[in-house]
Amino acid sequence: MSNQAQSRGTIAVIGGGVIGRSWTAAFIANGYDVVISDPAEGIAESIREKLPADLHGIPGKSFSDAEIAALIDRVSFEPDIAKAVQGVVAVQENGPERNDFKAELFAKIEPLVGKDTLLLSSSSGITPDIIGAKMTDPHRVVIGHPFNPPHQLPLVEICGTPDADEALIARVMAFYRGLDKAPARLNRPVPGFVANRLQAVLVGEALSLVDSGVVDMKTLDEIMLNSLGPRWASIGPLLALHLGGGDGGLHRVLSQLYNHVVPSMGLDPLPDDSIDRLGKIAEETYPRSEAADYIALRDRRTIGMLESRE
Amino acid sequence: MSNQAQSRGTIAVIGGGVIGRSWTAAFIANGYDVVISDPAEGIAESIREKLPADLHGIPGKSFSDAEIAALIDRVSFEPDIAKAVQGVVAVQENGPERNDFKAELFAKIEPLVGKDTLLLSSSSGITPDIIGAKMTDPHRVVIGHPFNPPHQLPLVEICGTPDADEALIARVMAFYRGLDKAPARLNRPVPGFVANRLQAVLVGEALSLVDSGVVDMKTLDEIMLNSLGPRWASIGPLLALHLGGGDGGLHRVLSQLYNHVVPSMGLDPLPDDSIDRLGKIAEETYPRSEAADYIALRDRRTIGMLESRE
Repeated sequence: MSNQAQSRGTIAVIGGGVIGRSWTAAFIANGYDVVISDPAEGIAESIREKLPADLHGIPGKSFSDAEIAALIDRVSFEPDIAKAVQGVVAVQENGPERNDFKAELFAKIEPLVGKDTLLLSSSSGITPDIIGAKMTDPHRVVIGHPFNPPHQLPLVEICGTPDADEALIARVMAFYRGLDKAPARLNRPVPGFVANRLQAVLVGEALSLVDSGVVDMKTLDEIMLNSLGPRWASIGPLLALHLGGGDGGLHRVLSQLYNHVVPSMGLDPLPDDSIDRLGKIAEETYPRSEAADYIALRDRRTIGMLESRE
Repeated sequence: MSNQAQSRGTIAVIGGGVIGRSWTAAFIANGYDVVISDPAEGIAESIREKLPADLHGIPGKSFSDAEIAALIDRVSFEPDIAKAVQGVVAVQENGPERNDFKAELFAKIEPLVGKDTLLLSSSSGITPDIIGAKMTDPHRVVIGHPFNPPHQLPLVEICGTPDADEALIARVMAFYRGLDKAPARLNRPVPGFVANRLQAVLVGEALSLVDSGVVDMKTLDEIMLNSLGPRWASIGPLLALHLGGGDGGLHRVLSQLYNHVVPSMGLDPLPDDSIDRLGKIAEETYPRSEAADYIALRDRRTIGMLESRE
């Protein structure tokens, strides 16, 4: 391949659906070669046709037509998985969300790759102990769960088995940072990981408010994009509350506001010991001495976001 | 007052705390005079000192020092509520969140103002029937609930009593639109309205994940601002899901994804008839023929947001 000389190595992308193609765009845009393994008919033509739009949609990157063509030359196709994973630096699996499929696949791949090859799964919900169940070393597989589409949104949730090697997790974090991604480490796996759990509870409440006629669907979306959306996109939900509590921080918000509001919605208030723990965590995570900087960041990002809307 | 000639009228702001001051900034920046009624000692000096920062923080506006001084000249102070509301075009109440306080206040104000004066409450949770309970015409009071801080974030949740006059609601919507706000109408009042209900469920899950050690607090905030935050700030949570479902739209996402994930989190799946209703609402609200435009909007805003971060 013409770009082989400058390549950071080859990554095997297992499964060439929307997620696999989007990962491919992120990988080739950041200097890797990619071999896609997918048995589907016409997969090569389909992916080559759609990759330019993905490459143009990567934040912070800008490619000429010639550069796009050169990047797409970095992609090859090999339906035989055993051949596809030969000599790769990483495997990014994007197959069906089925326990048995993923467990069989990684057991098959394990003896075919070098000991330093990263074995990564895009699974959005299956925990790594299940995915690694049939491997000789089940702790080698690590979740690298992107937020769709992976070429655009920075998040990758990282999660190993409870006994995963710290050095392996560190290498996986470094791998995704090297793609301009924002890897976020979970301390232990839970079904749905974090982003999809947060999404599920908010969407459940949103759907209930629309289905019961309290608010129209379009109005609900507008409420989010004119309030919580910009706030959470600027600094996240917990720092936002911590700052909203002024000198009392998160502890004050939870004890004086949150716990007075949630019972009227049919939710359980937080117990005092949880409020004490969480208030302390907030003070340690976001020290009072840096509050002015956080507020300035929140306001700068929020105003920038609102002014950039057409 | 020197600006009286160009004034759009005077608004009485009842309560000069953080919300009242922020509303004052939004009002004077958009051509109104404001009279603030608050019995607190030193309120005038405190507000005059802090208003410049609020005025500089209004998205899309830019004021010189001389303009700031002229705007602050539009603000006067009158602790006697009966005098403060004389001749005003609107009252924006920001008092304590207590049923009796608000009910007494609006009953006192009602006979002192003209029949076209808008009677608005910033209440974040008390429904308008309770606030209007002691008025001769309890349907005159309308919730205008801002998202903090009101001078910065566009949202104002609008909610009248179940028997409120449609023409009154329309006038309130027009009033807030005239302040460059994004009023969002609720069809009927529910405790916490919409934004705070959405916030409460997401924050509850976020706190649980942090308190149980699944994820660090800072990582949780980073997960939000690198995934759901930008997505929801670009087009809102329900349109985002509807587009994510491709040709199957929201119906497909709910039946094939949402309902397969939420049971593992201990949440109830949606019944089939709700999925059918919500899928239909999504198709009517966001027609398939406009999907390409929505996707382009989502991607443009998301990429703009991510690229604008330092």
